[in-house]
Parts: sequence; C-alpha cells; structure tokens
Amino acid sequence: MSLSNEVLEAHDGASKGKYTIGLGQDCMAFCSEVEDVISMSMTAVTSLLEKYGVDPKQIGRLEVGSETVLDKSKSIKTFLMPIFEKCGNTDIEGVDSSNACYGGTAALFNCVNWVESSSWDGRYGLVVCTDSAVYAEGPARPTGGAAAVAMLIGPNAPIVFESKLRASHMAHAYDFYKPDLASEYPVVDGKLSQTCYLMALDSCYKSLCNKYEKLEGKQFSVADADYFVFHSPYNKLVQKSFARLLYNDFLRGASSIDEAAKEKLAPFLSLTNDESYQSRDLEKASQQVAKPFYDSKVQPSTLIPKQVGNMYTASIYAAFASLLHNKNSSLAGQRVILFSYGSGLAASIFSLRFSEGEHPFSLSNIATIMNVSEKLKSRHEFPPEKFNEIMKLMEHRYGGKDFATTKDCSLLAPGTYYLTEVDSKYRRFYSKKTIENGTIANGH
Amino acid sequence: MSLSNEVLEAHDGASKGKYTIGLGQDCMAFCSEVEDVISMSMTAVTSLLEKYGVDPKQIGRLEVGSETVLDKSKSIKTFLMPIFEKCGNTDIEGVDSSNACYGGTAALFNCVNWVESSSWDGRYGLVVCTDSAVYAEGPARPTGGAAAVAMLIGPNAPIVFESKLRASHMAHAYDFYKPDLASEYPVVDGKLSQTCYLMALDSCYKSLCNKYEKLEGKQFSVADADYFVFHSPYNKLVQKSFARLLYNDFLRGASSIDEAAKEKLAPFLSLTNDESYQSRDLEKASQQVAKPFYDSKVQPSTLIPKQVGNMYTASIYAAFASLLHNKNSSLAGQRVILFSYGSGLAASIFSLRFSEGEHPFSLSNIATIMNVSEKLKSRHEFPPEKFNEIMKLMEHRYGGKDFATTKDCSLLAPGTYYLTEVDSKYRRFYSKKTIENGTIANGH
Repeated sequence: MSLSNEVLEAHDGASKGKYTIGLGQDCMAFCSEVEDVISMSMTAVTSLLEKYGVDPKQIGRLEVGSETVLDKSKSIKTFLMPIFEKCGNTDIEGVDSSNACYGGTAALFNCVNWVESSSWDGRYGLVVCTDSAVYAEGPARPTGGAAAVAMLIGPNAPIVFESKLRASHMAHAYDFYKPDLASEYPVVDGKLSQTCYLMALDSCYKSLCNKYEKLEGKQFSVADADYFVFHSPYNKLVQKSFARLLYNDFLRGASSIDEAAKEKLAPFLSLTNDESYQSRDLEKASQQVAKPFYDSKVQPSTLIPKQVGNMYTASIYAAFASLLHNKNSSLAGQRVILFSYGSGLAASIFSLRFSEGEHPFSLSNIATIMNVSEKLKSRHEFPPEKFNEIMKLMEHRYGGKDFATTKDCSLLAPGTYYLTEVDSKYRRFYSKKTIENGTIANGH
Repeated sequence: MSLSNEVLEAHDGASKGKYTIGLGQDCMAFCSEVEDVISMSMTAVTSLLEKYGVDPKQIGRLEVGSETVLDKSKSIKTFLMPIFEKCGNTDIEGVDSSNACYGGTAALFNCVNWVESSSWDGRYGLVVCTDSAVYAEGPARPTGGAAAVAMLIGPNAPIVFESKLRASHMAHAYDFYKPDLASEYPVVDGKLSQTCYLMALDSCYKSLCNKYEKLEGKQFSVADADYFVFHSPYNKLVQKSFARLLYNDFLRGASSIDEAAKEKLAPFLSLTNDESYQSRDLEKASQQVAKPFYDSKVQPSTLIPKQVGNMYTASIYAAFASLLHNKNSSLAGQRVILFSYGSGLAASIFSLRFSEGEHPFSLSNIATIMNVSEKLKSRHEFPPEKFNEIMKLMEHRYGGKDFATTKDCSLLAPGTYYLTEVDSKYRRFYSKKTIENGTIANGH
C-alpha cells in the first residue's frame, strides 16, 4: 500500500515541498492491517525460491535482520521455518540480528562469513531484511515506510564482497531507540540522529581509506568506486552523506577534488569537526561539488527508497536493488561502496564487485526477476485519511491478541502472504493468496 | 543475589522436594533493582579484559546473545561500546543475536565463522550472553535465574570447534515466547516446551550421528564423547535429555548400549515417536540406563546451572564453565558435545575439543580466573519475601522511565557495574563499584 508525499503534504497542512523536496521523498509504503514484517518476509522468501528455482532443501542458513518486534523472544526466522519444514529441511542455522536499521547488514556479513568458514556445508545462505517503519502522528510520520528484501548467498555469485575493504563504527548513542516497549513508535532525536549518521560515515570512510591505502599502496577517493549506496531514511540525507565523502576527500587532499572544487571548499578548511556537522554553508558547498558525481554514482540507487520510504534494515538493500534495476549487466567489473547505518549505533562501510554471473544468477536476469518498475506501478495509492485510519487501528492492535483481520487480500498480488488472526494466546496465523485469487491456509 | 529453592518451597507452600528434586535445582539467582542484563554484561566484559590482560583495542568483533529486551531497537552491544570507545576502538563488528535461549550460540557461531573468514582482521572476537529469567508469580517462578557470560574467540585457543560435527533443528513453535511486549514475563506452555526440547534434541542428535558416520565411516554413540553439556532451564530436563540420547543409541543399535541396557529398553522398542515423549516408564528406564554415563559425562557440567537457575542464553555456557571448573587441565585431548536450545524454536548440537592451551589461555588458568567456588560462596542469600518484593518493584519498573535506583551497591563485588538512573527520555545510566567501595560514574 502506498501514499503520495505530495498529497500528504497538502493533507497535513505542511508547506509545499516539505516532504518531497525537504526530505527528498516521493512516496511511502505501509503495511495494511493484513500485513506485517512476518507476512512480508514469508512473501519475499517464497518468491525468491520460486523465481530462481531454488529447492528449499538447498538452504543451509537463514538469517533475518529486523527492528520491528512482534515478539521479544521468538525470532522472525522461526516464522519462516514452515516453508522449509514441509520439505523436511530443519537443519538451517541462523536466527535474527538486531540493531535498528543495521540488523540486515549484520545478518548479511554473518551469512557470507559462514560460506567462507569450515562449518559451511555447501548449501546456500538466505538473508532477509524486513521492517515496518511507523511513527507517531507529527513531523516524523512522513519518514515511514515498509518492505522486506531476501538475498541468496553462495559461491560463484555475480556480486562479490571485497572482504578487506570494510570498516565499522560502533558507539553508544541515544539518537533513535525503542524503549517504550508497549508502543510500536520509536523515541527519536532527529537532529542528533543525522549528526550520528554523518559522524559514523566519516569514521567508517576514514578507516576504509586507511585500509585501502595499506593494501593497495595508493590513496582512495570517491573516484575509486563506480557507485555508492547508502542506508536511506530519506533521500536528503543520502545527498548530504555523499557530499560529506567529497568533503572528506578534500580534507585528505584526494585526487577526486579538482581546483574548482578546492576553491569552493577552501573556506571550510579550518572548521572543527563539530562545526562541520552544523554548517549549512558547508553542506551547500559540498553538495554543489558533489553534484556531478552524485548524478552518476549515487542517483541510480535512489529509486526504491524515494518511492517506498524508510525501510529500516531493508533500506540499503532496496537502494542496492535500485542500482541493479537501473544498471543491470553494465555493472560487470564495477565496484560499489555501501554504507549501512543503524541508530544506537552501528555502522559499516563495505565494498562489492560485480561480475556477469551465470543464469539464473546473471545480473540481467536478477534485474528481470526483480521487475522493479512493474512492482512500483502496481501499488495501490491510499489517501492520507485512510492511511491515518489504518495507523490508528495498527496502533491499537500492536502487541495485542484475540483479533481477526478482515482477511481482505483483494489489493495484494498473488503469492502474497497475509495475516488472518492473532488468537487468545497471541499466536499468529497467516494465509497465502493464490494465483487464482483463492487462498491457502498455512496454519500457524 | 540468590535464593534457596528449599526455602522457597517452604515459603510457597509447595510439597517438599518439588523445586529441589522435581526441578533438580538448588538455588536461583536474580537481579536486584540496581542490576540488569546491561550492567551484568558490562561487568563480564571488563572483568574478562582485565583478568586476561586483553587490550580493548585487540577486539575486532563483539556480539551479544540475549532475550531480555530493554530496548526493541538499540542493541545491548552498543551499551558495551563505551568500554572500547574510550580506548579509541570503534571498529568492532557484530550486534545482538536473538531467539530465546539460543541467541548466545548464534553469536558464538557467528564469531567463530568471522575468525575463519576472509574478513577477519587478526583481532579477537568477544561473545556475551546475558539474561534475566523472571516469571509471573506461580509455578514457573522458581525456574528463573540471571547471569552474563563473556567468551573470547581467537586462533590457537584451548577449546576448538569440530566444525563438521554440528547439526541444527529449527522449527516454528509456540512453546515459550514473549508476545506481551509491555510485560517482562513470557507466555509458557511448559509441557509443550519440554517436548519441543526433546524433539529438537532427537533431530539434532540423529543428524549429528549421520554426519559423523559419513565423515568417519563408523557409528557414533554417547561413548564417542567424554562430556555432554546441555542448555539447562532446570536440571531435571538435563537428566531426561541425556537419557534420551541413550534411548536414541538403543534405537540405532549403537555400541554404548550393553545387553543389560537392551533388556531394560526392549519394552519401548515399538513406541511411536509421539508415545516415546509421553511415556513415564521409558523416561524412568532410560534414566536408569543412563545413570552411570550421566555421572561421568554430564554431572560435571551441572554445578552452576543448579546453583544459579535458568540463565537463558548464558545457561549452556555456564554449564560449560562448570565443566572447566571441575575438570580443568584433565580435559586436554577430550571431546565435549553441547546442545543449545531456544524456544520458538532453534537448536544446535556441536562438538568441541580441548587442548592444553598457552598461558594465559591454558585450561588451568581459565579455571583459576573463573574462580567459580569463591563466586558461588560469596553470593548473598535473600529470603523469599524480599525476593518477591524486588520482583514487584522490577515488574513496575519494566519498560519505565524517570526513576532512580537506590544506588545501593553494598552487596555487589568490587568491579561490578550497576544501574543508577533511567531518565525522562528512558536513557539508562550506570556506575562501576570500585575496589575501594567507591564508585566511578560512566555517564550513559
């Protein structure tokens, strides 16, 4: 289900462009009352297995990254197990990884390490990122979103980790957290969170550059990667972040900064680190310097995040999927740098390399199967009134028991799982919408 | 803080032996109002680093396993980062892993895989299991407990994974879960949970035996391991579980079962799988058969779990620590099989081998540093009335904000961290009790 940010601005009485230009966001997806992070991940996993013809028995590890808590003990991964249990496969390692929007990256790293470890048993790993980002009524509400992404991990892949080009920045911060356990909504300090994000980016980028320089014996700059993909709570922060990398390159005297750029950034050379996060003039100047690079290296990864909103753990991988969608087979041989951020805080920057890959895992086939344009087009737009109504209902039901949903799956695509009931013992029941518009019950 | 189960029986008006023999538990630890899973893990981590002389800069990965949720987004790992931040080390991968009592095992596997992967940077990994197990008043309350365990992971260790001897069983179950987000207490189906545990054990053991037989070309039986360590919600289940392995060996015609044992178990040969989980006669007969093996192979790992209670993610590693404590350097060359279980459900069986190790990481030095007997002796026993009073206060404070604790750390050992305040923004503040009985504030 989706919502237009232009329509939402008007409805909220916000100034024109506040969401669309201020945040840089076009639309926002949300879960209706028949969907949640479990149903979305069931859909993503079964869809991946079916579309690539992967036998569920071929999965040896399954991990979920999420920050949307429906149960504080039982992992989302266990809700996905029936897909494998019915094929007799219960020997599947991995549980849920969690730290705000970073959990999916932790799950991905874990899964890749497993394939490289002596305990790997030759089967595929599967990583799922699933989240529903909802905010209390007020200025943060338009920064919501919802999505699940599934990724298959194995040897001879068309997308390969450059495992030595990785750096993390982890610290203790209260920028965004969810201490009110009874509420689905986070406690957010928006300004602090943005600063934490940019500080973590600086720290990771510096460390990555140092590691690259030790390894390769030459300086690293944004010119050394073809694309950059960022965790995207809203597009404006992605613009600022990429500009920040250029500012870093400027301070490091890197080759990506030509004479004209040096001149533009010279006034900011003497800023303290703290001042640099606050300076609007620096923000403007560095975005100007970054603009041509941004258009070629970043813009191709912004489609889905701008259309779907903040997807928390899924955000960076939906951005990555946008790049695959836009550039598909032309990516072979190229390098992409990804920056993953989760409040609290955990952040990593890492490098991937593309190769052609072999069917069905070729870059072009992946783009075909993802079918991004069609999927975005087929969404159902809701008016803000209806959206707020659904948010109210979801607020009421969060953490609740003993209710049935409408079971109305008329707006869902065939193959989509949906929530039918939460019983008196809080047990959740799901069904799958079949191709023929009927449904298959899957028990709980 | 601890509680005697014999005293608790009398206080609760339970029949004599209900907790001590029925559950097989001697005592139970609990967090007082100045402790929680975060303070316990801060204490465990700083204690490990100090006692082994490990520089915080030497840690490249830190992961936490826990099912005690104080925040639904911000990981416990981030609360531990100040220990490393003050040394300038923020490049530390890993977040929290979660699925009931299994999260610590997931974190451990992830950390070991990291050391074996191409992204390992030569530094140590650190795994922390931390949980506070509390139950609503009623029959489950005496199955509580509380603990944190920290484990250092690196090459050339005295405890080595036999990585090919590992099997998992993951499935969708509602045996124990925490869907009531506002409450610290779980929803538990005790009988179902026990059956799920034993079914998962059977499945893992069968799969382990198959893998061993493929690898080694000979049959596996309990005789092929020197020790067995189980996740221990209460000791009685450990007794039943080990007996279940003997029953499995019997059904498989394994060499561990002599003629006398065969005779005792013969009446149960025709039971269906379901019947076998329900049969009290089989339970009794198999425990008789298992008894001599239990005393030598299992009993050495039962000390801490019997004294501290259910420690959720820390339980199996506290059992493992008991084995190190009891057998220390005699373990060199021996094999131990561990079974980790988390409701929901996730379970793995895996094998470790011991070697002498080099100082400070020799088996005997590890046992000396753990100092288990002294630590158990120095605990403070509380009467049940005081325990219930504290439980009430904690119930009230769970998920709350804007309160200060008594800051009374008189009963805590020097070096212990404790909670001082949760402010109006739910931010948590901790201090550390110094050697001189003063305290150092560490901010938040």
